[in-house]
Amino acid sequence: MSNLIRSTPRADGFRMPAEWEPHAGCWMLWPQRRDTWRNGGKPAQYAFVEVATQISRFERVTMGVNPDQFENARAMLPPQIRVVELSNNDAWIRDNGATFVVSEEGVVRGVDWTFNAWGGLRKMMYFPWDLDELVPAKMLEIESLDRYKAPLVTEGGAIHVDGQGTLLATESCLLNPNRNPDLSKAEIEQHLADYLDISRIIWLPRGVYEDETDGHVDNLCCFLRPGLVALTWTDDRSDPQYERSAEAYDLLRSARDASGRQLEVRKIHQPDPMMMTEEEAAGLDIVDTALLRPAGERLAGSYINFYIANGAIIAPQFGDRHDSAAFHQLAQLFPNREIVGIAAREILLGGGNIHCITQQQPAGRAT
Amino acid sequence: MSNLIRSTPRADGFRMPAEWEPHAGCWMLWPQRRDTWRNGGKPAQYAFVEVATQISRFERVTMGVNPDQFENARAMLPPQIRVVELSNNDAWIRDNGATFVVSEEGVVRGVDWTFNAWGGLRKMMYFPWDLDELVPAKMLEIESLDRYKAPLVTEGGAIHVDGQGTLLATESCLLNPNRNPDLSKAEIEQHLADYLDISRIIWLPRGVYEDETDGHVDNLCCFLRPGLVALTWTDDRSDPQYERSAEAYDLLRSARDASGRQLEVRKIHQPDPMMMTEEEAAGLDIVDTALLRPAGERLAGSYINFYIANGAIIAPQFGDRHDSAAFHQLAQLFPNREIVGIAAREILLGGGNIHCITQQQPAGRAT
Repeated sequence: MSNLIRSTPRADGFRMPAEWEPHAGCWMLWPQRRDTWRNGGKPAQYAFVEVATQISRFERVTMGVNPDQFENARAMLPPQIRVVELSNNDAWIRDNGATFVVSEEGVVRGVDWTFNAWGGLRKMMYFPWDLDELVPAKMLEIESLDRYKAPLVTEGGAIHVDGQGTLLATESCLLNPNRNPDLSKAEIEQHLADYLDISRIIWLPRGVYEDETDGHVDNLCCFLRPGLVALTWTDDRSDPQYERSAEAYDLLRSARDASGRQLEVRKIHQPDPMMMTEEEAAGLDIVDTALLRPAGERLAGSYINFYIANGAIIAPQFGDRHDSAAFHQLAQLFPNREIVGIAAREILLGGGNIHCITQQQPAGRAT
Repeated sequence: MSNLIRSTPRADGFRMPAEWEPHAGCWMLWPQRRDTWRNGGKPAQYAFVEVATQISRFERVTMGVNPDQFENARAMLPPQIRVVELSNNDAWIRDNGATFVVSEEGVVRGVDWTFNAWGGLRKMMYFPWDLDELVPAKMLEIESLDRYKAPLVTEGGAIHVDGQGTLLATESCLLNPNRNPDLSKAEIEQHLADYLDISRIIWLPRGVYEDETDGHVDNLCCFLRPGLVALTWTDDRSDPQYERSAEAYDLLRSARDASGRQLEVRKIHQPDPMMMTEEEAAGLDIVDTALLRPAGERLAGSYINFYIANGAIIAPQFGDRHDSAAFHQLAQLFPNREIVGIAAREILLGGGNIHCITQQQPAGRAT
């Protein structure tokens, strides 16, 4: 049983926990769109299998899959992964899935954001996104967790929290007129406060250069613990990313979190600029109703787009000269977690990375 | 996690429990086929809502639903029903779903029969049945229960057990060449023994007259407790059902169960013969790939097709002069359970009844 609750999480004593708090498990969706994932999705499927398999060493993984891919996904995934039918238009469950909230008493519920495929009719990634809109309700039905329906167009990748009342977001995404044209900034802030129990929002102007989500914060920076933030960085002042990271750095350093703390910021140098190759682009279906991904387009690569599992960090690697530094920085920043590197270019080709294709479900009970 | 187990339930110490043993809950599927259910499935949907709602007073109910009916089913069902996406070709989960088995230690697993839509290419109800074939695996994945794949074409409605090693079945169905043409009777018996832990099979020749399943036993007779069987009956010797019930009665009375007991048999008089009306038949789509259901066809109505829930009997009623007698007989036979009558004609029009659209999941744990 999953009740639709008409109040708000804050009013009921629920908050969004930080990603490093204990998980019941992790949700993913199976990639198959031929216009997002090259060669019929097969290379991406192998990458997703690797992500799921690695996460399953640390916590339960549930893979949601469209009906026509159930047998294939079940066959490709190891048996410890739970495979459930969960129709979707694409595999970005961070964005089209539920965001979970918890109470002091250990009850878990879900927030069902309004989803418009990263920009609605003004700038969607694909059309339609009707199945995506039902993903949160279906996740919560399976788990028998109650659901809040939030009257705010956003995606899970557009928000990062410290679990203590502070939220990171980008203006380019959350305040974009392609999301909530009828809401003022104050109204958007009020919804974030009400649905995640947030008392301080740190607004950053923009996300990662060429990030097609209008700049999701989860590709730019994230909390590592309360008071400590990691930020994607480049030392190359000629790279358009430089001024984006620099302005974010300055803002983060001058900000205070919900507890009044100044933030520490750790820079993680980005991979060198990567472009979609001719061969990669040639593997994509070309359709009128989905974003075109041409050869030569810069990919929004970032080491920030990792997933925090129970006892581990599942981190993207790109075969880049900066891979090793990023890996070792994460190891220092999370001394009590195993760092697991994943060859993630195939995920990045679809427009996101490991954090975008995962959604943690906090530990707790249904009622 | 749901492992596919290569051995058999019997070898691993698992048996199929009787339906009256404690349940974790009940599974159902949502009706929508326009060639099975009249008027786009709407009258049947209301009947299924009533069945699910009544069962949910006694145990958890999970309703599996095709993606295109998720919102409608969710809206029509009360919130305590768990609604999950579970693609299917039709709503007979007794037949296309998993059969559950339990161990002495309280572990629950599933048996995934081979399903051929009640007769395969020789006499199927509809084509294709590809989604039906995946229903058991998907149920078990959701519950993280391990799965046995049985090399036997059968359906849950073709078997009834007393939980103590005795199985009731009809030869017209289980031994029909449209099910397992390459298996001998002894091989079929061995599979039933291996997958349900059966040591005595009581074979009845035929099921209910005009039952389109080739005579599922669950419309003809069922165990009420070990040693006690209920049998559909008619006093009208001119009814073709008479000789079917009479021969079953004689066979049951002369049979011994797995413990060597003689069986007691309680006759429950059937409803008067019911026919598909012109109006009802006119509400069905006519398609080449599904059984035609013409006006005037006799419906295989029987009071035996009830569901045993925790603390209740969910029993079909037909607006017939025998309704009241059947209801009171069940009340006497199950003195510790509430008898809940359901107006079931809309279910019967599809070719089955309450037992056919339900599947109990025994209480127990995954590992």
